[in-house]
Amino acid sequence: MGKVVLDISMSLDGFVAGPNPTLEEPLGAGGERLHEWTVGLATWRERHGESHGARNADDEVVAESLAATGAVVMGRRMFSGGVGAWEDDPNADGWWGDTPPFRTPVFVVTHHAREPLERKERTTFTFVTEGIESAVERARAAAGDKNVLVAGGASLAQQVLNAGLLDELQIHLAPILLGEGTRLLEHVDPDVRLESTRVIESPAVTHLRFEIAASV
Amino acid sequence: MGKVVLDISMSLDGFVAGPNPTLEEPLGAGGERLHEWTVGLATWRERHGESHGARNADDEVVAESLAATGAVVMGRRMFSGGVGAWEDDPNADGWWGDTPPFRTPVFVVTHHAREPLERKERTTFTFVTEGIESAVERARAAAGDKNVLVAGGASLAQQVLNAGLLDELQIHLAPILLGEGTRLLEHVDPDVRLESTRVIESPAVTHLRFEIAASV
Repeated sequence: MGKVVLDISMSLDGFVAGPNPTLEEPLGAGGERLHEWTVGLATWRERHGESHGARNADDEVVAESLAATGAVVMGRRMFSGGVGAWEDDPNADGWWGDTPPFRTPVFVVTHHAREPLERKERTTFTFVTEGIESAVERARAAAGDKNVLVAGGASLAQQVLNAGLLDELQIHLAPILLGEGTRLLEHVDPDVRLESTRVIESPAVTHLRFEIAASV
Repeated sequence: MGKVVLDISMSLDGFVAGPNPTLEEPLGAGGERLHEWTVGLATWRERHGESHGARNADDEVVAESLAATGAVVMGRRMFSGGVGAWEDDPNADGWWGDTPPFRTPVFVVTHHAREPLERKERTTFTFVTEGIESAVERARAAAGDKNVLVAGGASLAQQVLNAGLLDELQIHLAPILLGEGTRLLEHVDPDVRLESTRVIESPAVTHLRFEIAASV
């Protein structure tokens, strides 16, 4: 059986989004800087329909993660783009367009029931209103032997950590300061025990991997 | 001329001390866990008058840092042990005992003027009331070709960063969560630009080194 993995970019001061997200800046002011390390990579560009990207250590980490992923779990805000569009219109399309980069089943944790959305390139969005355990369980079933990727945002990540549902945490630590915004590791039970299992460095980002041990 | 270097242990959730520091727990609740990676190391044990420590990658990082250091700058709380003893008694001895581990001149940034303290093994504490620029300048003069080590705490680190006085930041990232306490990278100008220059990993801790580039 695969693992449940949280995979997310974080600034050195602990933020996974900047302040004041808008539809134009769903990651908040400065938040795009968290992902600057990805945008030139071959694997990332292929997922977005482009070619001629860089093949380097960072690209290998991304390719490895994507190849291992059989299903994705994300929060409602991450689906909708971080702002209130979906609450205003429960059938809004979300932020990911016709051809989302996931290419797996995606389970969106939400209080708003709605019909599944089918998108191109094998991405389907299924809306789960029974809570995070149910969403992770359904993603596990869909993923088979592959991993369940918890994609964010911070609130979902914290819930999954605190519920003891996470097997592995991969943080792409960007050498930037955001100063304010949404912190990843806030409201997390400090008894969660982490074991550092791998570090891969590049000038652009440091990939830190932790196994989650049982809480004491 | 040497560099001005901040060298500090930080939890994965960004803390350099836990909550509620006391004389018995100057690093706050759980704060000792930040430094667990150091206590068995040969270099650390030698500095504390003990032998038979471990010689490994972590020890090399500590030995390298100590060998490069010609003077130390610290905040008043770090000198006094984090609590109010010194305010109660301006001539209190501080927290470091007869034989502090620094073995260099130490410049303590404070509002309370007092005579220098001479300790064993070449450690002297000089109290600087003219501000951080003056403390760093005096430490530079004392350090000669060696580095000035900014030892903490967080408030001093933030002031030194924001004043543009820092050349290098070395964070020993411990794979622990403290949940609350004192954050290192709070109140720091997000325009401070960091360049990742070295990563050394061990199971106990990841040593991250950044050069501070000019602010944009």
